[in-house]
Amino acid sequence: MSHHGYCIWLTGLPSAGKTTIAHHLGPLLRASGWNVEVLDGDEVRRGLSSDLGFDRTAREAHASRVTYVAKVLARNGVIPIVALISPYASSRSRARSEIGRFVEVYVSTPLAECERRDVKGLYKKARDGLIHDMTGIDDPYEPPERPDIRVETIGRSPPESAQYILAELERLGWPVRHGATGA
Amino acid sequence: MSHHGYCIWLTGLPSAGKTTIAHHLGPLLRASGWNVEVLDGDEVRRGLSSDLGFDRTAREAHASRVTYVAKVLARNGVIPIVALISPYASSRSRARSEIGRFVEVYVSTPLAECERRDVKGLYKKARDGLIHDMTGIDDPYEPPERPDIRVETIGRSPPESAQYILAELERLGWPVRHGATGA
Repeated sequence: MSHHGYCIWLTGLPSAGKTTIAHHLGPLLRASGWNVEVLDGDEVRRGLSSDLGFDRTAREAHASRVTYVAKVLARNGVIPIVALISPYASSRSRARSEIGRFVEVYVSTPLAECERRDVKGLYKKARDGLIHDMTGIDDPYEPPERPDIRVETIGRSPPESAQYILAELERLGWPVRHGATGA
Repeated sequence: MSHHGYCIWLTGLPSAGKTTIAHHLGPLLRASGWNVEVLDGDEVRRGLSSDLGFDRTAREAHASRVTYVAKVLARNGVIPIVALISPYASSRSRARSEIGRFVEVYVSTPLAECERRDVKGLYKKARDGLIHDMTGIDDPYEPPERPDIRVETIGRSPPESAQYILAELERLGWPVRHGATGA
């Protein structure tokens, strides 16, 4: 035990594919012996941040709670996979410095494609003026300038994106097999 | 990996000895191969609940966030040791049903003794009317009626209390050595 975990942090626009990819990546790492917890933004909100809305202050508070949970998991030998829009560079940078063992993965999907997918129908609602503070529409998304890993999802299925991230983790020296040495 | 953890939840009055005992119990379980995270109420507040005060609603919200973190840790093979006043039976009962693998430990120290210790000087402040919502003074503490483990701290040093809890865990069938079978 007490092999250190590390945090895989997926950031990207709504409907970019973060949660789906996370749920494909998790089993790959579990099959390699890791305990893995997918911290999906929406799910974690229910457990941790049901009091919070979606303005900048609320998003930052939510990101900082997710950061805390990911930190505690990683230092106990677990790999947390965070799937969170996390639109602000400052929040992601705080997460990196607080967690330490941190891999920022930019799930890069163009806005037009995200809006076409619109998994939860939120883009439409935002365009219709029914909701506000929608990232990509009336709330900014600050794309990572130098993510550790960038995965382009156009022309790649979610399982392929997960495999790509796994290969990149290995290339960067992160232990993808539990018990193996690595970064 | 993926050996299930379980949550050890210490409840008791302020200055009852929860945090100190938790920090003695942690190393005993780590020496037995477990990853252990002490979730101390005050510390977790800084990471997770800096927005919350100490009235009933705030205490319940805080307890429910701690519950979430403990649940996620326990299902990833970690033993979270929670050291939280958690004055309301309803909050502890929710924690038990949400976490599942849950051991309620009542750190039983009489109010007069807690007030004599007054580790953080809060009893004095409450008696002087400088703070409010102080558990045991102007906010209720509902002692567990049937805790899994009750540890009386008068006449027992913190290391002795930790050893006592460990022996009780073993007696109740919880795995105290990692990899051993148990409850």
